[in-house]
Amino acid sequence: MNYCSHCGQPVVSRIPDGDSRPRFICEGCGTIHYQNPRVVTGCLVTFEDRVLLAKRAINPRHGFWTLPAGFLENGETAAAGAARETLEEACAVVNDLSLYTMFSLPHINQVYTFFRAELKAPEFAAGTESLDVQLMSEAEIPWDQLAFPVVTDTLKFYFEDRRHGHFPARAMDIIRAPRPR
Amino acid sequence: MNYCSHCGQPVVSRIPDGDSRPRFICEGCGTIHYQNPRVVTGCLVTFEDRVLLAKRAINPRHGFWTLPAGFLENGETAAAGAARETLEEACAVVNDLSLYTMFSLPHINQVYTFFRAELKAPEFAAGTESLDVQLMSEAEIPWDQLAFPVVTDTLKFYFEDRRHGHFPARAMDIIRAPRPR
Repeated sequence: MNYCSHCGQPVVSRIPDGDSRPRFICEGCGTIHYQNPRVVTGCLVTFEDRVLLAKRAINPRHGFWTLPAGFLENGETAAAGAARETLEEACAVVNDLSLYTMFSLPHINQVYTFFRAELKAPEFAAGTESLDVQLMSEAEIPWDQLAFPVVTDTLKFYFEDRRHGHFPARAMDIIRAPRPR
Repeated sequence: MNYCSHCGQPVVSRIPDGDSRPRFICEGCGTIHYQNPRVVTGCLVTFEDRVLLAKRAINPRHGFWTLPAGFLENGETAAAGAARETLEEACAVVNDLSLYTMFSLPHINQVYTFFRAELKAPEFAAGTESLDVQLMSEAEIPWDQLAFPVVTDTLKFYFEDRRHGHFPARAMDIIRAPRPR
């Protein structure tokens, strides 16, 4: 951030009075510009004993398999965003979503939420951001071709929980070195 | 948003190619400025049969009672942010946090996360953003003096769950008319 998005004057980075962290502050109009983590929201979609995976047509991790997910938009609930991403990436309509996993990824300033949802019929297709979409059984999951640790972890929890028939919502952290600036 | 925070030129609001929503786009450098919901994170802190409430010294809802909570910061996990807010607002040290409630509030572009945590000793005090901090039993909760619906709902779930000895994590939506611009 170099300029104030409100008045266009240059910003400086300093700790505001009463705060404890440096913020970008406009020297013209005084606006303090806070920067905060973003929410990524998605779905673990199942049909009978299989789960819905999408092969990424975009970077990062082009060609790797993922669960449908993307950035939560303003004006949207986390569940609605997860359903929207599932429609956009996998052309699948889901309802009745249940929170399943939440991950904090502080090194990239993201919070992930995944919801469980069941397909009523095996109707899906690759959206514009996907090369392919498939329903896969546990034995078919390409564990070494999954796009992100949050996807691997969510799938592992799911198959383990399925053995017990109980799917508690969980929050976890994925800790890595900060991303280089 | 009026100006590009990267180059300082004016922005316009239009739908980028391949997108479906209007974004602020810089006509100078082409940067697309996405705006996304923010995460508010906090704690339902207990000690024996009582819960920790803070009386707000700031707006909005000055003078009303709340659970310690505030905006998640970059570089921070949701649980670490909840513990930090608990320290800042109630001078209470908590560890071993468990996700309890998650709320989407699309009318104000927020996602709330509340974690349960137990105090090891009844040590707390009002931080700079609080007028008072108290441990309260269920009978002492000032239900008509609570600051936010997310606080009321989280406390109701807690006292109900306590009767069963089981505290599942839950996600919910709070739907209101959009905030006037």
